[in-house]
Parts: sequence; C-alpha cells; structure tokens
Amino acid sequence: MSTERVYNFSAGPAVLPLSVLEQAASEMTDFRGSGMSVMEMSHRGKEYIGIFEETKADLKRIMNIPDSHEILFVQGGATLQFSAVPMNLIGKTGKADYAVTGNFSSLAMNEAKKYGEIKIACSTEDKNHTYIPAQSEITVSADASYFHYCSNNTIYGTEWKYVPETGSVPIACDMSSNILSEPVDVSKFGVIYAGVQKNMAPAGSAVVIIDKSLAGNEHPMTPKLMSYKVLIESDSMHNTPACYTIYMLGLVLKWLDKQGGVKGMAAQKAEKAKLLYDVLDDSSMFIGHAEKPARSGMNVTFRTKSEELDDRFVKEATKAGFHTLKGHRATGGMRASIYNAMPLEGVQKLAAFMREFEIKNK
Amino acid sequence: MSTERVYNFSAGPAVLPLSVLEQAASEMTDFRGSGMSVMEMSHRGKEYIGIFEETKADLKRIMNIPDSHEILFVQGGATLQFSAVPMNLIGKTGKADYAVTGNFSSLAMNEAKKYGEIKIACSTEDKNHTYIPAQSEITVSADASYFHYCSNNTIYGTEWKYVPETGSVPIACDMSSNILSEPVDVSKFGVIYAGVQKNMAPAGSAVVIIDKSLAGNEHPMTPKLMSYKVLIESDSMHNTPACYTIYMLGLVLKWLDKQGGVKGMAAQKAEKAKLLYDVLDDSSMFIGHAEKPARSGMNVTFRTKSEELDDRFVKEATKAGFHTLKGHRATGGMRASIYNAMPLEGVQKLAAFMREFEIKNK
Repeated sequence: MSTERVYNFSAGPAVLPLSVLEQAASEMTDFRGSGMSVMEMSHRGKEYIGIFEETKADLKRIMNIPDSHEILFVQGGATLQFSAVPMNLIGKTGKADYAVTGNFSSLAMNEAKKYGEIKIACSTEDKNHTYIPAQSEITVSADASYFHYCSNNTIYGTEWKYVPETGSVPIACDMSSNILSEPVDVSKFGVIYAGVQKNMAPAGSAVVIIDKSLAGNEHPMTPKLMSYKVLIESDSMHNTPACYTIYMLGLVLKWLDKQGGVKGMAAQKAEKAKLLYDVLDDSSMFIGHAEKPARSGMNVTFRTKSEELDDRFVKEATKAGFHTLKGHRATGGMRASIYNAMPLEGVQKLAAFMREFEIKNK
Repeated sequence: MSTERVYNFSAGPAVLPLSVLEQAASEMTDFRGSGMSVMEMSHRGKEYIGIFEETKADLKRIMNIPDSHEILFVQGGATLQFSAVPMNLIGKTGKADYAVTGNFSSLAMNEAKKYGEIKIACSTEDKNHTYIPAQSEITVSADASYFHYCSNNTIYGTEWKYVPETGSVPIACDMSSNILSEPVDVSKFGVIYAGVQKNMAPAGSAVVIIDKSLAGNEHPMTPKLMSYKVLIESDSMHNTPACYTIYMLGLVLKWLDKQGGVKGMAAQKAEKAKLLYDVLDDSSMFIGHAEKPARSGMNVTFRTKSEELDDRFVKEATKAGFHTLKGHRATGGMRASIYNAMPLEGVQKLAAFMREFEIKNK
C-alpha cells in the first residue's frame, strides 16, 4: 500500500487519520476473525451489534452525553436534518427562530419555512458573514419551538465561541464542522446534529444527539425514517443503518481517545489554527475573511488582493502537496480546513509554504 | 490480511465479492496515486467526479437504462423511498395502488397512507405470502398515480417472474433484493429503487432510477433532499452524497462486467437456486416456504418439521462455516440468501451439507 499521502485541506469529505484508514484496510476482508467484512455483516448479528454498541458508548463517554439525551445514527447527512428538525420539533408552537450566520444556517432556515413560521433571531448577512453575533444581538421569541444555529460556518470560516442563552427555548445546533473538536456541554442543547464527513467518518450519514423529552410530536407527514421517536425506539435500526460508516466512526473515536479526547483535540485545534492565523496577521499579502474574534479553528478562509494571485497560490500549493485549498465561490480566495485529522505537521508546512509564497511573490 | 472467509448467507447487508473488498483495501490510503482515500475526497473534486461519472455510466450500460430515465444515488436506503415515492408521485391524483406480497411491500404501503388514498391491488397475505399473484389477480385503478410492488420478497423468499401490466399507470418497484440479478426492461418502470446492501454495495444508500417526466410534482412538505426534481437537477449532489458507497458500487459493477453482466448473473442465479431447491424437492426433512412457481432466486426459505431441528441445523451449519442462515421470525426456519456475490462453491457446499444433515438426523 502506498503512503504517498497529500495534505488534504478539503472542507468535507475531509482527511481521516491515516492509522484509521490503515486499520480499516487491514480488517476489510476479515473483521477480527469473523470471516466477514464489516460491510457484509447483518446489522442484527452479534458481531455488528458489538461494533454498534461500542461506538455509541465511546461517543457518549467522549462527548459526556447525559442520560437525558439519545444518540442517533441517521442517514442523509446534515441536509436531511434541516428538514427533520422542524418536522419533529416545530409542532409545539408552529414557530421557530433561526440564527443566520452562513450558507448552511440559511439553507436550514429556508427548509424550515415549509413547516412553520420562521423568525430570524440574528443575521450576519450585512457583512458577508464575517462575524458571529454577540448575545445582545440575538432575539429569541418566547413562543419559539426551538432556536437553531450552526456552530461553525465552513464556508465563511467563522465559529461560535459561546452557546447562546435562549431561556426556556430548546437549542437545535448544526455542529457538522466542529463536533468533537472541543468539549461541549451537551445538556444545554435540545438537538445537536452533525454530518459525519468532516470530523467523524466518511460522508452519507449524520449523528443526532437529542433530548429524548423533545421527541414524539412530529408532523403526521414526517417520513417514518425521519421521526426522532421512531429512531429512538428502534435504536437507529428502524431500517438497516449505514453500518460501515458507524464502524469507521468507531475507529475514529478510538484514535481520538489516544489524542486526549475532546480536550486534546481542542489543544491541537488552537495550536494548528494559531499557526495559520499568525501567517495572516504577519502578512501584507494574505487577507483573512473572518473578523478576529469570530475566526474558526476548523476552516481558515483567506485571499490575496487579486484573483490571479489566488489562482497561482492554489496551483503552486497543489503542486507542493497541499490539496483542495480553493475557497468556496461565496468568499473566493482560499480555505484551509484543518479538522481533527489534519496532522500538525501538515499545518506547519502549509504555514511555511504561505510565508515563502509571499516572499517570492512580493 | 486473513482470507479465512465464511460463507455468508445474510439477507442484507450481505456478502460482497472478495476481489472487490481486496481492491478497496489496497486503495484505502491512496486511491490510484491521488494521495487520498476515496473517503477523504471532496465530492466536487476531479478525482471523485471521475469515480462518480464512471459508476453512473457503468450502471446505465449494465442495466440498459434509457435516456428517458435518470439514475439517482440517494441516502436512507429503500425505507426512505417508501416515503419519497408517494411524496413525489401521489400528487397527480392523490391515489395509488399497492401490491402486498410481503413485509417490505406492506411497510411501503403503510407509509404511503400518510400521503394519499391507497388501494390494495392484490395481496398474498391469505397464504402467508407463499405465492405471487397472477396478472389476473391484480386490480389497477385507472386513476392511480402509480402502482407499487416489490419484485423480490426477501423475508418470504418469493419473486415476481413478470412485470405486471398496468396500462397507463406508472409502475414504482422496490428492487432492493434482486436488482442486477437479471436483465430488466427499465422502460416499463416509472421508478425503480433499491437499497444497495444486497446486490450493490455496503448499507446506508439506495439507487433510484426514475422516468424524468414523473418528477416535479412533489408535495410541498417534501424534504428538499427527497425531491426527485432537486436530485435530478443536482445530479445527486444537492448535498454530499455517500461517496464511498458509490465508489464501492463502482467496483461491484466492474466485477459484474467480468461475470457477463446481468445475463451472466441471471445464469449464475438460476444455477445456484436450482442447487438448493433440488435439495428441498428431494428431501423428506426440509420444507420450502414459497410455492414452486414463486420461488426466489435470491432468498431460499425453508424449515424442518420442528423448531428444535431448525435450531440444530443453524448451529451445525454455522460451525461448518455457513453463516447467518436463521430465518426471519415471520417465517421461522432458515433462509439462505444467495445474492450475486455468493460464490457458486458456497451454494454447492451448503447443498451438500443439507443432504448430509438430513441423512445424519433421520
């Protein structure tokens, strides 16, 4: 097996720990003496149930999830949760509040409008989503069934550094791009959901962590597979789950334990992000998209003064082994996604490459 | 890597070709010099788009899918399609007809009742789903938006040997457990869907093949990710697709080409099924569940005269390397699922084991 690996800064699907991929490869045709691939196992068989239960227990322990909350492994990524959250939760009052701080929070809000009356609790659209609202800028309606926000904006490179206060209104949070990157007080949330393809596993699934007391009031038209109640009662096995993805998540969680869990990841996150933001702060060529207090520890967005120079940067970086640095069309420029599995070394080398590029292209 | 493989007769997730698993393992950390795992690739990057396009083209060619139809790679398995089909199609008249020939066709029908008026076009419940209705036993309403059936009943081990005539009413068919096992005239169908975990790929996704003229009339409450129109327009990339699953399907399709495509699979299917049904026909111990004309070429369901003997059979078979032969609780007894990837050798050995077991336990 080749190990000529590039440094992959893709925003998702994203880099996975090499040791996890190597283990998956080594267990591919015969999982630990079972004579089967995990891909081939009946989801009701004891071998697979063992994997499933262990992954769930590891996630509960690592994220310190209280017994009030249930972990669901669902299909369809975060996007299907944009629909599932309102279909399951908005029935209480018919209303919900959304914080709009980027592309995905906006998509989530637009989808929710199909199912009830939506109010914008705050928006950062006025400054092309370069900042995160302060608590004082957020208006939560007393009669909202829930308040929704996205804790890290992958495209704009901003991240919430606090959990908003919403009184008695439950919080639904899309944590797709920063879950498992730092400790989170799960008890503050009604629903946490995350597409797995950034910090957890290969694409196509999502993890939902839900306060069980919120389930059971879904709209009658809710597809059965999207009912939180059905998913809780069937322990995510109303249908065949995405078994292999859950196995991969399990391997990632074992790796994460060795990194010191979410506390260890938070330290690495801070160290890696500082390396790149220091380059931006020292530079007269690179311009960060996000305002400093809102800077994401997961997605570093920046550009130069010209599109031509941006293109040259991406081209030369790719040649040098730094992959998928082109920014989203909404911001232009570049984006370096430095999720949990991005090795420190990759970020150190990218920082050095950026400094060198600036000198060469002055 | 160990190759101590068992013969895995699981009904799904199910056996995959060993050569496919070996290739996946060998490409796990570096897909063909890209320096990345397929799991890590941006779904918008040229490496992944290449995989995606090739898989789609191969499926189109192998199934001889006409240009009138579009292939969709969707998340959520067949179960989410139980909801998607009515949400997208029932709006035309508010009505649909369902053939009930087993567990999954019944689940599909019950889900559809949320979205419109459902009529049973035929049912085999009277004889515990041991048979498939003749054309003359099926009543299709002229004003049905579509007629739905399940072409192979995994649990009961029965299979439709013909495509029902429905006049101008479009046919929606759940082909989860016999897709790619024989040639199918796709032009006869409005929608074909199949959970991938039996004949295609690891669990968590489905393939939908849809007559494009049927899309665009979805119920306003349809989750965006379940809209056939949205999925067609975005080429299954409204959100991040289950990239790795699609890659695995691609590998399976390359393997299938080497087996002579769907014609080759049909020949193997007939040969493998005959081996086991001959045992049942010759036996005074084993009793088949399905009536002879309805026998499935994918799932062979049988039992003995006593539950105790059934248990002994399953136990001894497992010890001898024949895995997951226990039948579903709806039928009791045993079930041998002999999907495309089950090697002929495995079926030959199981047949021999059954004959031997009968002699020993007379």
